[in-house]
Amino acid sequence: MKLEQQLQQYSERVQQLLQQSLSTQDSLYPALQEAMLYSLLNGGKRIRPLLVYLACRFCGGSLPQADAPAVAIEMLHSYSLVHDDLPAMDNDELRRGKPTCHIAFDEATAILAGDALLTAAFEQLSRPSEHYAAPQQLAMVHALSRAAGERGMVLGQAFDLSHVGQALSLEELQQMHALKTGALITCALVMGAQAAGQLQGERLAALQRFGDLIGLAFQVKDDLLDIEADTGTLGKPSGSDQARNKPTYPSLLGLEACKTLLDQLLQQARAELQPFGTEADDLLALAEYIVRRQY
Amino acid sequence: MKLEQQLQQYSERVQQLLQQSLSTQDSLYPALQEAMLYSLLNGGKRIRPLLVYLACRFCGGSLPQADAPAVAIEMLHSYSLVHDDLPAMDNDELRRGKPTCHIAFDEATAILAGDALLTAAFEQLSRPSEHYAAPQQLAMVHALSRAAGERGMVLGQAFDLSHVGQALSLEELQQMHALKTGALITCALVMGAQAAGQLQGERLAALQRFGDLIGLAFQVKDDLLDIEADTGTLGKPSGSDQARNKPTYPSLLGLEACKTLLDQLLQQARAELQPFGTEADDLLALAEYIVRRQY
Repeated sequence: MKLEQQLQQYSERVQQLLQQSLSTQDSLYPALQEAMLYSLLNGGKRIRPLLVYLACRFCGGSLPQADAPAVAIEMLHSYSLVHDDLPAMDNDELRRGKPTCHIAFDEATAILAGDALLTAAFEQLSRPSEHYAAPQQLAMVHALSRAAGERGMVLGQAFDLSHVGQALSLEELQQMHALKTGALITCALVMGAQAAGQLQGERLAALQRFGDLIGLAFQVKDDLLDIEADTGTLGKPSGSDQARNKPTYPSLLGLEACKTLLDQLLQQARAELQPFGTEADDLLALAEYIVRRQY
Repeated sequence: MKLEQQLQQYSERVQQLLQQSLSTQDSLYPALQEAMLYSLLNGGKRIRPLLVYLACRFCGGSLPQADAPAVAIEMLHSYSLVHDDLPAMDNDELRRGKPTCHIAFDEATAILAGDALLTAAFEQLSRPSEHYAAPQQLAMVHALSRAAGERGMVLGQAFDLSHVGQALSLEELQQMHALKTGALITCALVMGAQAAGQLQGERLAALQRFGDLIGLAFQVKDDLLDIEADTGTLGKPSGSDQARNKPTYPSLLGLEACKTLLDQLLQQARAELQPFGTEADDLLALAEYIVRRQY
């Protein structure tokens, strides 16, 4: 099966799972679940779940084994967007062309929907399941909590917010993005491996290094797209980073150097998975997609 | 050892663990960890950790086994207070006599500190440990995620916020508090049992029923204190529920009926643990304390 078809299939699979993951039925206050679903089902490229599926297959796991971590990481990503968009944070009113959660509902509901999505990610991973032994599930919970928390994604966000309008060194920018975006991308790959039963070993280590590289590439590409794409394609105002005086790779390195960096990162990522030959083809194709995408 | 001394000992133990649980060292942005610690170490009765310790001992477990869930549940409780106090939520400026997190720091930092405390709770529970087998840790993660999430505490908070100033039936008020406060109190007892190795059985079931009763009693007492105590003792303005026109047990039942209800709940809670004789003495004493406390 070609990668595009495969990605399409995984994408539809995770979409359906996300839809089923929450129900407004018999809820004391259905607006909470509605706000969660609104944020969770609002399009998106589903890159993190795709990474889970591909890493799980790469490590010999089945699709059903990848389902729980795929849903969990998308819930976690979704919570981070809902909270990021809040007035006290980025104060964004549009996300993927639709009103953000606190605009569509209200601020309190958005805060709580984010809290509940974050919590639901851990519920997904810890649910009794025939697909895993307990140590596998526990390893996924631990990986996700570390990647997402005060030494991972949240730290990156806090650093980012506190430095808007300030000059950053390239090293600081990289550190920030490694936490803010990279940690979760690497975690998607790691959980895919753990779901397949790989709790240590060469494959896991290679996936980790591969993840760090494509996570960085993902962010550099995002920064480039913010400058190059138009508002309609992005689903948010283009040039919004510049308008906010946010430090970005292009603003530090220039456009051309950024493109060169992207190619270098892709090459290094390829090298990490080379020992696995054609088994790594799908993961490499996804890395390529991340670097070449137009939105 | 007398209960008071025991509670004192557990309280100091968990305080020390909380202090050690987070470090500002080598953090890219130490203010995040500072805000987390500020909220986590700000006094409090530590009732949930105490319930963990007592339930764990009641089920034959050791103190070190109770440590991780005790820390986790206090982190979770602490996150819920930080987010509850936000301007878009209860908009409180004082908590236990000190400025709330978003006043002491800023709103964005408070949102992120709450997110990070919630995430850290799951990291605590999933950390590799010699004290548990993986299924025990997984059971605790699952119990906490269910109690805290979209069918538990967060749902209760969402319902509460959306009904400020509206008339509630007694049944709705009870449902709301069972979610908002009760779920986490019962979860503390359940995790204590799980930490001790009891993943099912009569003791676990009895603790669950006992928890539901004292959780309700806890809330009824809170409502009474809000009316009766003065601001200095409470660390927040007394009568603040009334001022906001929040539905409370006294407003629905009247003061005297509330006191009768409290006594009934305590009696029922006693009955649940009666089969275990003197082994349940400490848990019963804590229940008594919850009903008799003056702040």
